[in-house]
Amino acid sequence: MKNKIATALWALSLLLLTPLSQASPRDAIGVEPAFWWAGMHNPRLQLMLHGDKLAALSVDIQGTGVKLLGTEHTDNSNYLFINLDVADAAPQHLTLELKQADRVLHRLDYELKPRQPGSGARQGFGNKDVIYLITPDRFANGDPANDTVPGMLERAKRADKDGRHGGDISGIRQHLDYLAKLGVTQLWINPLLENNQGAYSYHGYSITDYYRIDPRFGSNEDYRALVQEAGKLGLGVINDMVVNHIGSGHWWLKDLPSQDWLNGYARDTSSQTPKYTSHRRTTVQDPYAVAADKAAFTDGWFVDSMPDLNQRNPLLATYLIQNSIWWVEYTGLSGIREDTYSYADKAFLARWSRAVMDEYPNFNIVGEEWSANPVTVSYWQEGKRNADGYSSGLPSLMDFPLYEQLIAGLNETEGFIKLYETLANDSVYAAPGKLVLFEGNHDTNRLFSLLKQDLARYKMAMTYVLTAKRIPQLFYGTEILLTSPGEGRNDGLVRGDFPGGWAGDAVNGFTAQGLSPQQREAQDFTRVLLNYRKQSPALQGGALRHFVPENGIYVQFRCDDENCAPGSHKLMIIYNKNQQPVELPLTRFRDLIGTSRSAIDIIDHKHYPLTHVIPLSAAGVLVLELQD
Amino acid sequence: MKNKIATALWALSLLLLTPLSQASPRDAIGVEPAFWWAGMHNPRLQLMLHGDKLAALSVDIQGTGVKLLGTEHTDNSNYLFINLDVADAAPQHLTLELKQADRVLHRLDYELKPRQPGSGARQGFGNKDVIYLITPDRFANGDPANDTVPGMLERAKRADKDGRHGGDISGIRQHLDYLAKLGVTQLWINPLLENNQGAYSYHGYSITDYYRIDPRFGSNEDYRALVQEAGKLGLGVINDMVVNHIGSGHWWLKDLPSQDWLNGYARDTSSQTPKYTSHRRTTVQDPYAVAADKAAFTDGWFVDSMPDLNQRNPLLATYLIQNSIWWVEYTGLSGIREDTYSYADKAFLARWSRAVMDEYPNFNIVGEEWSANPVTVSYWQEGKRNADGYSSGLPSLMDFPLYEQLIAGLNETEGFIKLYETLANDSVYAAPGKLVLFEGNHDTNRLFSLLKQDLARYKMAMTYVLTAKRIPQLFYGTEILLTSPGEGRNDGLVRGDFPGGWAGDAVNGFTAQGLSPQQREAQDFTRVLLNYRKQSPALQGGALRHFVPENGIYVQFRCDDENCAPGSHKLMIIYNKNQQPVELPLTRFRDLIGTSRSAIDIIDHKHYPLTHVIPLSAAGVLVLELQD
Repeated sequence: MKNKIATALWALSLLLLTPLSQASPRDAIGVEPAFWWAGMHNPRLQLMLHGDKLAALSVDIQGTGVKLLGTEHTDNSNYLFINLDVADAAPQHLTLELKQADRVLHRLDYELKPRQPGSGARQGFGNKDVIYLITPDRFANGDPANDTVPGMLERAKRADKDGRHGGDISGIRQHLDYLAKLGVTQLWINPLLENNQGAYSYHGYSITDYYRIDPRFGSNEDYRALVQEAGKLGLGVINDMVVNHIGSGHWWLKDLPSQDWLNGYARDTSSQTPKYTSHRRTTVQDPYAVAADKAAFTDGWFVDSMPDLNQRNPLLATYLIQNSIWWVEYTGLSGIREDTYSYADKAFLARWSRAVMDEYPNFNIVGEEWSANPVTVSYWQEGKRNADGYSSGLPSLMDFPLYEQLIAGLNETEGFIKLYETLANDSVYAAPGKLVLFEGNHDTNRLFSLLKQDLARYKMAMTYVLTAKRIPQLFYGTEILLTSPGEGRNDGLVRGDFPGGWAGDAVNGFTAQGLSPQQREAQDFTRVLLNYRKQSPALQGGALRHFVPENGIYVQFRCDDENCAPGSHKLMIIYNKNQQPVELPLTRFRDLIGTSRSAIDIIDHKHYPLTHVIPLSAAGVLVLELQD
Repeated sequence: MKNKIATALWALSLLLLTPLSQASPRDAIGVEPAFWWAGMHNPRLQLMLHGDKLAALSVDIQGTGVKLLGTEHTDNSNYLFINLDVADAAPQHLTLELKQADRVLHRLDYELKPRQPGSGARQGFGNKDVIYLITPDRFANGDPANDTVPGMLERAKRADKDGRHGGDISGIRQHLDYLAKLGVTQLWINPLLENNQGAYSYHGYSITDYYRIDPRFGSNEDYRALVQEAGKLGLGVINDMVVNHIGSGHWWLKDLPSQDWLNGYARDTSSQTPKYTSHRRTTVQDPYAVAADKAAFTDGWFVDSMPDLNQRNPLLATYLIQNSIWWVEYTGLSGIREDTYSYADKAFLARWSRAVMDEYPNFNIVGEEWSANPVTVSYWQEGKRNADGYSSGLPSLMDFPLYEQLIAGLNETEGFIKLYETLANDSVYAAPGKLVLFEGNHDTNRLFSLLKQDLARYKMAMTYVLTAKRIPQLFYGTEILLTSPGEGRNDGLVRGDFPGGWAGDAVNGFTAQGLSPQQREAQDFTRVLLNYRKQSPALQGGALRHFVPENGIYVQFRCDDENCAPGSHKLMIIYNKNQQPVELPLTRFRDLIGTSRSAIDIIDHKHYPLTHVIPLSAAGVLVLELQD
């Protein structure tokens, strides 16, 4: 009945909106999400309204096909949550009336936008892709005018390794062509959301507004434009989400939505010292752990500047889920990387993953579970039959266990054996091929430094990652051998500026101007390998076979069919640690070489007859495409 | 029809047997197993006959209810395999006639014995038990007359750490009372079967006759008497089986039953050098390993003196299965420990385990998979859902991963955290509580030496093993602090003589005469803990709860019900590494302490009020039984 009246009132409400908004200023009442879409898979929408004593008001909705399911309050009278069913709603502008008795105190416009065609069926990142991680403050400063922004507490200071350097969305947009030609296909960008903290805010993990791009990076529309432009060049964008914690500068801290919005920090007793997380991640799946120890892991704070969210609060849970979906839908993302995955409430995490994946069935999400133990990591992947019955809904995880063994495997004398044996642990995963294997990220020391600045090892590592039966991920600047200290945490140095990203830089990695011969060699190697991978069905899917390392040589095969059957397209990848020239006898590999009579090195196009041996000149790697 | 005639011929055959056996001497034709039992679960019986050109002969069986299913030959005409169905056979003596055309060349008596009542339903070792591992050559020399035996190649030489020292079955029988009073309930004895090798034969793992106890240990009947006597004292016996390999002195080597009886060592080309195992155990479950690498692990030899058996030969497979069952049935065993588990053919291993467990549904078998990786070990336990679909049928495995973390956990500064986190890996096992956790075995350096001869750590280790939610296993002499070097392999020294086991020993561990005060303290501690465990439902089953270690203190609880519900019987076990006196606040443990007002130390019977703190005087362990 009300909806019929609402239809009739549609034109009128549009007319009335502006003057009423002036009478009760729009910015006096916050509404999140600020808009939504018609035709989403999930018909429910929950709006969070924030404003003076809103909880006491009643609500009317005027719109076609929109059902008001009810409202919810918390112990804070300044928040009002409105539950809508928009299953039958076409794109339109609704009107929300907030009333005291029969008097309309506030009348708000709310838009249900039309979805982009195919939005729900979008393809997430996968095995065909290579992900390139960018720390936006450190990649390229496209717009020096936004380095320091009024109202944002921290000013730019490039000389400070822990300060803001001025990199931004504009800088990334200006170098999309470089990235496309390099051969990567997905950009994971560290969080771009507002981090209005007094200090140490460049990294992006202290979010102070879940619906606003930090103005030092650009605007919401700039981000959307970046995603659209990147897409035209074949580059997807993966959003870095943080649902575990916020920044202490988040506006919620000034007026917490409820007593239980944060873990260990009630609104009425906010002077208390929070408990810090124990970091004891094994408690989540430990069959013998006690409840208090589990809570000490998930409910503790990282640091004072990162309040820990209580996702057991259903209103907060819905807020976070809708926020993740909002950014996917608004900008056109192809994936999410979820930060500090296991630290959040695990029932919520499953609900969150399922809600996103239900909305976008071909989407992808990768979680960060920073453990070298494959048992621990495997717990979190969808499809795993866990002893406690937990099922996460999360398609992918960062492969920290294999990453750590890769570094050790290349540095240690008997390391190839370790690396070989580590892959047997794939049996513990529900879907090992869907894991994201990386050569480094913003939290690890630089690859070239970890490998003792040994170019042969570097090429082996890059090849291993880019030819693994995984989804590969690179860290910006690895292609030009950016360095860092090799031990301990060195965040500010690891996330060094990409040379050429700032006007006046003496060296330019984008144009290769001023790079050392070794840097050019690395960049060329990476580019050739990436572009080869882009068109190689054997690397984008199919099978892996590997041989027990012998005499310092580790051989893998990739094939474009699951059985490496005769006639399939095959690559033979030879990792060699010998510093002297050696010959690799081919006898062991005959089953896989099959009838191929020669092979071609995909890097330098040299031909190798596949008769008795392959001569290996020095430590390094050969990627051979088998020929008929 | 033939069976009816056989019945009629029964009396006659008994009469005829002796003279015919003289005509064709019994020892000219070997029959294995030498006898069998009526009423076994598996109705099939396969006899291996060995003698000059037997394969060409036909077979008649005279016996009641016995069906001759057929015979099988190999490429060696000196072997004949006879397949019988004895489902309907009562205990009896059968007659086997081996004939050429109509002429009976050999007439052999074969006995089907009556089974012991309840044999099939026998209870295997389990969580109620504690296993005590004995190296029989090194425990006690009960019969010096058998130290050196004519026909056995290696003579006794006690001064040689790698020689035979003279310990025997008689020595174990003489000290059963010591073991029963110590409080263990199962004896695992390293292999007692004939090892007639020229050298280094004391360890027992180079079997040269699967059906004969080594005469330097005693006779088959001595072994049976040991098992029976032990049983009367509440001690079960666990047989150490080896199906992976034999000793090079095995009689088969003189006339191999078939070309494919051994891996990589055909009868007709026996001068070839065998391939050695790669020891790459991960190949078994590695989804990417190639067939040749899998074979290089399972089909390779350990050493020249240990030919590797090819269990893919179905005749050999049946031989090994029947042999394992024969010893269980003949002596009255309560379990099997299976050596070098994963090195044998995995399809055979599953068939072997199932055959034994089908015969004795309440039995138990523990396999040795010597890997520190729980993923690798878990693959082999029955109930595990393996990615490749493999299902082993094996109820238990030695818990090498937890053993290694236990030693590291006690020695390393932050070791308690590692030890705590390791238990979360229990989620990878189908049945972690059924694993056998040990403080050491014949292949590991001595516990007291690994723990730097620190008695506090020793008590912590012994307590951890004996209170774990596992089946505990001790190694002989650990209770009196036997030592060894602390690094590398030191087999001969690790398996040192138990003092007092040899006449004239200056020190006697059995009577405690001559033991140092520290040794007596260790032995008393072990005895008290073992005897407490024997009557503690909380240690023999029920739940484990543990708390994240803090301030050098690690606390576990055991309860006699799965939920540690109020009212359940509880133990609080406190591991403390602090060298100075400290107080343990009880706040964290309130949920488990419940309404208990005090606790009693099960070792020294001291009472502790459970009010605010428990005072801990120095590094060590407290095992507290909670009182009402």
